Amino acid sequence: MSSTETFQRAAHRTPAPDGSFIIPKPAPATGADETESLDVWGFRDTRFDISENGHVMIRGSRYELSGKELPRFWPWVREVLEIELDPRDVYKPQYPTRIPEPILDPHFLSTLQSFLSPSQIDMNGETRLRHGHGHTQEEMFAIKYAELGRIPDIVVYPESEDQVTRLVEAVRQHNATLVPYGGGTNVTDALRCFSNERRTIVSVDMRRMNRILWIDRANMLACIQAGAVGRHIIAELKRYGVTMGHEPDSVEFSTLGGWIATNASGMKKNKYGNIEDLVLDVNVVTAAGTLERSSCSPRESVGMDLRRLIFGSEGMLGIVTLAIVKIFPFPEEQEYGSILFPSFEDGFKFMYDLTREATPPASVRLVDNLQFQFGLALKPKSAAMGKLKSRVERFFVTKVKGFAPDKMVACTLVFEGARAEVQQQQKDVYRIASRHGGMKAGAENGRRGYQLTYSIAYIRDFLMNYYIIAESFETSVAWSDALALCNNVKFRLTAEYAQRGLPGKPFVTARVTQVYRTGVCIYFYFGFYYKGIRNPQDVYLELENIARDEILRSGGSLSHHHGVGKLRRAFLPRIMSSTTLQWKRELKKSLDPENLFGAGNQDPGIR
Amino acid sequence: MSSTETFQRAAHRTPAPDGSFIIPKPAPATGADETESLDVWGFRDTRFDISENGHVMIRGSRYELSGKELPRFWPWVREVLEIELDPRDVYKPQYPTRIPEPILDPHFLSTLQSFLSPSQIDMNGETRLRHGHGHTQEEMFAIKYAELGRIPDIVVYPESEDQVTRLVEAVRQHNATLVPYGGGTNVTDALRCFSNERRTIVSVDMRRMNRILWIDRANMLACIQAGAVGRHIIAELKRYGVTMGHEPDSVEFSTLGGWIATNASGMKKNKYGNIEDLVLDVNVVTAAGTLERSSCSPRESVGMDLRRLIFGSEGMLGIVTLAIVKIFPFPEEQEYGSILFPSFEDGFKFMYDLTREATPPASVRLVDNLQFQFGLALKPKSAAMGKLKSRVERFFVTKVKGFAPDKMVACTLVFEGARAEVQQQQKDVYRIASRHGGMKAGAENGRRGYQLTYSIAYIRDFLMNYYIIAESFETSVAWSDALALCNNVKFRLTAEYAQRGLPGKPFVTARVTQVYRTGVCIYFYFGFYYKGIRNPQDVYLELENIARDEILRSGGSLSHHHGVGKLRRAFLPRIMSSTTLQWKRELKKSLDPENLFGAGNQDPGIR
Repeated sequence: MSSTETFQRAAHRTPAPDGSFIIPKPAPATGADETESLDVWGFRDTRFDISENGHVMIRGSRYELSGKELPRFWPWVREVLEIELDPRDVYKPQYPTRIPEPILDPHFLSTLQSFLSPSQIDMNGETRLRHGHGHTQEEMFAIKYAELGRIPDIVVYPESEDQVTRLVEAVRQHNATLVPYGGGTNVTDALRCFSNERRTIVSVDMRRMNRILWIDRANMLACIQAGAVGRHIIAELKRYGVTMGHEPDSVEFSTLGGWIATNASGMKKNKYGNIEDLVLDVNVVTAAGTLERSSCSPRESVGMDLRRLIFGSEGMLGIVTLAIVKIFPFPEEQEYGSILFPSFEDGFKFMYDLTREATPPASVRLVDNLQFQFGLALKPKSAAMGKLKSRVERFFVTKVKGFAPDKMVACTLVFEGARAEVQQQQKDVYRIASRHGGMKAGAENGRRGYQLTYSIAYIRDFLMNYYIIAESFETSVAWSDALALCNNVKFRLTAEYAQRGLPGKPFVTARVTQVYRTGVCIYFYFGFYYKGIRNPQDVYLELENIARDEILRSGGSLSHHHGVGKLRRAFLPRIMSSTTLQWKRELKKSLDPENLFGAGNQDPGIR
Repeated sequence: MSSTETFQRAAHRTPAPDGSFIIPKPAPATGADETESLDVWGFRDTRFDISENGHVMIRGSRYELSGKELPRFWPWVREVLEIELDPRDVYKPQYPTRIPEPILDPHFLSTLQSFLSPSQIDMNGETRLRHGHGHTQEEMFAIKYAELGRIPDIVVYPESEDQVTRLVEAVRQHNATLVPYGGGTNVTDALRCFSNERRTIVSVDMRRMNRILWIDRANMLACIQAGAVGRHIIAELKRYGVTMGHEPDSVEFSTLGGWIATNASGMKKNKYGNIEDLVLDVNVVTAAGTLERSSCSPRESVGMDLRRLIFGSEGMLGIVTLAIVKIFPFPEEQEYGSILFPSFEDGFKFMYDLTREATPPASVRLVDNLQFQFGLALKPKSAAMGKLKSRVERFFVTKVKGFAPDKMVACTLVFEGARAEVQQQQKDVYRIASRHGGMKAGAENGRRGYQLTYSIAYIRDFLMNYYIIAESFETSVAWSDALALCNNVKFRLTAEYAQRGLPGKPFVTARVTQVYRTGVCIYFYFGFYYKGIRNPQDVYLELENIARDEILRSGGSLSHHHGVGKLRRAFLPRIMSSTTLQWKRELKKSLDPENLFGAGNQDPGIR
């Protein structure tokens, strides 16, 4: 679409004097304290470490757990994995293991330089390396202990939709290929490059297209550029008293464009919906021009809706440049809650009834007993009073209520909304919970559970240095199949692990992270001690694939919100008819015949 | 996809002894009293007529208004249209005006006969004619007063997905073309055939694939064949204490497959969602085989979701054979309500606040003053007491409350759900309404408003015989643009009508039929007296297109739920970028290169 033809939707309205239509100022530049690590998850100011007292601790001051010793953690890991873990026995990472030379034709570079400033082009090795992977265990293991292989040859930072369009043209002209890059947090090998890709691979990092273009409070919509990062979207919208409400666990780093490309799910989807519910419209620069609409309506019937193909497209069809999303008043109330149940089955029945009899709160999660213990093991060294209180509490729970420490589980809750709404939800939740033997365990434990989500993400890279490899994977499944699925996966992984004579015991744990009227999302952690195992990342992958096989046999989906990428594409024929897969390939071939968007996710049948 | 490869999802589970998984018996055969008219809307037992007293009345006994005289109607029409209307001056319909000879190669017929029984093949002229149109005014005028032109050559009634697959094969083999047929209620010329289509046109009437295959009460899902008609789905599901909750105004006749192909919206979408929210999965027989999944999950991220393309596909990509839909407990409570407001603007503000401050009831509608009067004009001759009460009421409303008869409007409501939910919604509704000058007008007026929806649908064909042509069209639009849009469309149509020197005055009226947090659906009626006008159906269409132009200028969408079909496809370039349209054409070309699905809706760029 030529620029004269552009609908210029973003510019079609002017600020309203009553504040109902706002064009916000650009967000302040990212501060030095927001620098991200290249070799491990997260912000550079935060990492797990061993304290002077020999305890595990989190360095820095960013999170609630930061700076605190976790004396129970190390002993608990030893106990669960049944191994002798020596904190002095470090498997020292060799990051970056190898950075291949870029494949780059100087003519292509000078074409790029004709419309991008020097600051928008980056050929630094570690930057290129970082743009060639997400956060699967295999990738993180590879950049530190093995080899990642082919990586992008050049990283560019477009600043406008026009520059994205020119990038696509330049790539076509010079027979190169493009891979869009958001926050780099995927766990599906979606950014991993094919070793036999001989074209120049251009990673298109969207971070500079991060503005909120307008906020329409009359219609509760915002137009946001696709490179905007979750934490910035939350902070900026909050200044105007509104929120988008989308909070995947990666929200600190992932981007709006990435959420759409991955078909992401937010923690608080019960209140705000998943990404497909929140996004009303998108602009997408494709190999054939820009997918764009002249206006954005609440709901339409205007034929096949191609915009819907972009959800879950994983970089294969184009680059999302902006989206119009629903917004909500910043909640009047936000309250946490937690409930203890005698068993996972009791907690599960509570959640089922909750979806049947009430409006579930913004978030409700249920961890199994092992994950409950994991949470306790991450409790910091308490002050004397805290300790006493905790001991008294434990006595009450186990002796008075008769909960078995190796059976009991916890449910955590986030209530958000108007005061009356929150009160009604709390009433319903605790009424239904008590029917299933639930015991209120306080807002503080709930808050702690959710806070943990962000700091716990750092633990994987830390443990990797101590010969422990771990990862999460998830599924969605009907209520009636969910409990059996959890048990089947745990049983199968444990059995397959033992059968291989691998060291100690594996760590397998599940939690229910989302509820729907029709079923749930189940999130697994799986890890083991790998010292003495050759290529542990491959052993891990083999076992993860076995778990996925068991998930599919048990009626679960290939993924609830992580996506397919390259990691799970071999399973596609098990879940889709050959016609469905052929349609996908036909679609890709007809819309991007030169495969300019060459990320190769989801078996596009074109290379 | 070969039959051995079929996932056989429909058969993968067996009935549960606890009743949580049910395989219902086939529904009883359609009764004689369910016979539909061919030449006019609706059931054959119902039609508008002139009574012995010279009043308008509805014959039959099906609806609440049936058998009752409507003495105010005729005078009111005269007054509004500013014409002399003579009930004896009937423009007698000539239905069927002409039925073209079928184009049918005997070899093709014998191929069809090789897998379809004689009862599954119909070449009757009136049947073919009925399958060549929906319910636009142009089509209904054509079959009675002009000429429809090309129509399907043969109508077939498949009874299984396998037969649908064989149909597609037969059509390919013999160079014919297919048009899926559900209830024939579209208002977009979606079924209309191209005059220059030289291939044999096969209308695939899905009515015999109408079974509810299973009901899964544990996960609140049902698997239903695509030919099932709305009224039957409601009745059958009710036997098991559940409902799908999807009630478009055409629910008596339209089908599940048609809802998906049109991207339909239900009256009670506030509670149950629109069709895209309700359908979790579909099977679709395409030119390349069957789109099918091995299991159905609550929510997934498994790449580009091709099933989403089927919503709004209007018969262009394949034939939907079944869908897995969400179901809900049959509501504990169903209550109606109505509120009078001093003006449309007041009622509109009430609706806006309702979406901001509360959970709106299952349905909430707001008619403008003219439509309010229209409703009064359709009140049957009352008994003496009723009359008195009504007079007293009118006195109270106009004299005591000071509502102006030519300004006041009505809002009607349906509350559905658990008792507490309904009570809360009622409390919220009336609290917010009173802030905007609203006056409770009782459940009875609300119930009447919704009942009217079904009987009023018969009026168009009746009035056509008295030289009145009328039709509805709709849009969706942001809250902030909605009032202006209503005014702009009314003003423009009135002005353009006068400018053409057409007789009397046109009838233009609007109602808000759906609310979203981001905007509303607006539904217009437009009609005029056409005696003395040549080709009134073309004059109507020209004016309707002018109204659509005004809608688009005012920020409205091309359609909220009617769709594009052939009627609105010329407007597509105004709402979608050329790339978006090109993508649609590429998609069609790659997925159905021979254009076996040749209905030609949405400008597929292939013929």
